[in-house]
Amino acid sequence: MPLWHIYHPVGAYSDQDKQEFARDITKFYTGVGLPDFYVVALFHEIPESSFFIGGEPTGNTVRVVVEHIARHTQDPHLRKRMTEALNALMLRYTKDRGLHWEFHVDETPQDMWMIAGLWPPAPGSEAEQAWARENRPIP
Amino acid sequence: MPLWHIYHPVGAYSDQDKQEFARDITKFYTGVGLPDFYVVALFHEIPESSFFIGGEPTGNTVRVVVEHIARHTQDPHLRKRMTEALNALMLRYTKDRGLHWEFHVDETPQDMWMIAGLWPPAPGSEAEQAWARENRPIP
Amino acid sequence: MPLWHIYHPVGAYSDQDKQEFARDITKFYTGVGLPDFYVVALFHEIPESSFFIGGEPTGNTVRVVVEHIARHTQDPHLRKRMTEALNALMLRYTKDRGLHWEFHVDETPQDMWMIAGLWPPAPGSEAEQAWARENRPIP
Repeated sequence: MPLWHIYHPVGAYSDQDKQEFARDITKFYTGVGLPDFYVVALFHEIPESSFFIGGEPTGNTVRVVVEHIARHTQDPHLRKRMTEALNALMLRYTKDRGLHWEFHVDETPQDMWMIAGLWPPAPGSEAEQAWARENRPIP
Repeated sequence: MPLWHIYHPVGAYSDQDKQEFARDITKFYTGVGLPDFYVVALFHEIPESSFFIGGEPTGNTVRVVVEHIARHTQDPHLRKRMTEALNALMLRYTKDRGLHWEFHVDETPQDMWMIAGLWPPAPGSEAEQAWARENRPIP
Repeated sequence: MPLWHIYHPVGAYSDQDKQEFARDITKFYTGVGLPDFYVVALFHEIPESSFFIGGEPTGNTVRVVVEHIARHTQDPHLRKRMTEALNALMLRYTKDRGLHWEFHVDETPQDMWMIAGLWPPAPGSEAEQAWARENRPIP
């Protein structure tokens, strides 16, 4: 948690671009207290002949799927603010390059998630802070 | 919204097939009032050695994952009818070609979804109709 | 149902490894009464330059996403036990090979899922047992 899937056109991002994008994603979550290693980003290159919007092939669209596990909020204001913050961090890798982009966030159960065979500590707990400090799962 | 992931055998679909499949998917949603450009379809070619059913490699299966964001209904009858309609539109690209197929729909939060940096308008609203008419997000 | 997505480093698994992993996954579910053919596993090879943890490229991580449709339980104890059992079956293909691993389970609606154009029978029903016995969908 979180898991980002970034579906993008072939050649849209250099290795350097991907690393910077992944770092920007990571910064967002560590800013709210999550350990670095919680943040997984997968880049999926999709050929234009396999990527359709409105039934037409597209070579300039980035479609992002974000899965949140560790943190859920029910507060509509916080949800809105968080979603807009996620959008903001994508701009450099989408809008600023003339790419169309769309994303959505899914929320999955907190109690069916393990890392390296361990149950992640409760959100905001001492243990979670220790995991964040050491940047590794601690048995 | 919607986002379709179509996991299919290598070579199962020509570029033309994929376009027709994506257009049929699109038609389904525009038929209920959604803008064309809401409909994203991604085709993922999976080698037989990476595609397993019941623990055995398969080269003739199509597995579809549909993510719905903009429209959710709680009415069991409508849900059933919609799911059967989705199945019907797949037949030409699965059953009729001798392929096994399975799909499921997931529903994700409407309030954590943005397109081109904008909040999509409320379902059925005037604004949504305008987006559909112009087939683009309107700030 | 279930659908397993296994995102893994290039070359991490031989075809034989993948088959054994898929068989172990299948065994878990058939052990609780599901038909073999319900169990779909997709292996996705992700290049190190597209696979990031904490903003850094990783070549030794396996990230698994499990989607459950046919069976959901609300019992916290059963959920915990099941999640730990899923972790246990992964060890041979992750920890035992020196790979880091993380997984989570998502639960999607039971009433928006079809196999080969049919509605899967109710969990635990006679019909489901027949599908399991014959290992195929029966109209």
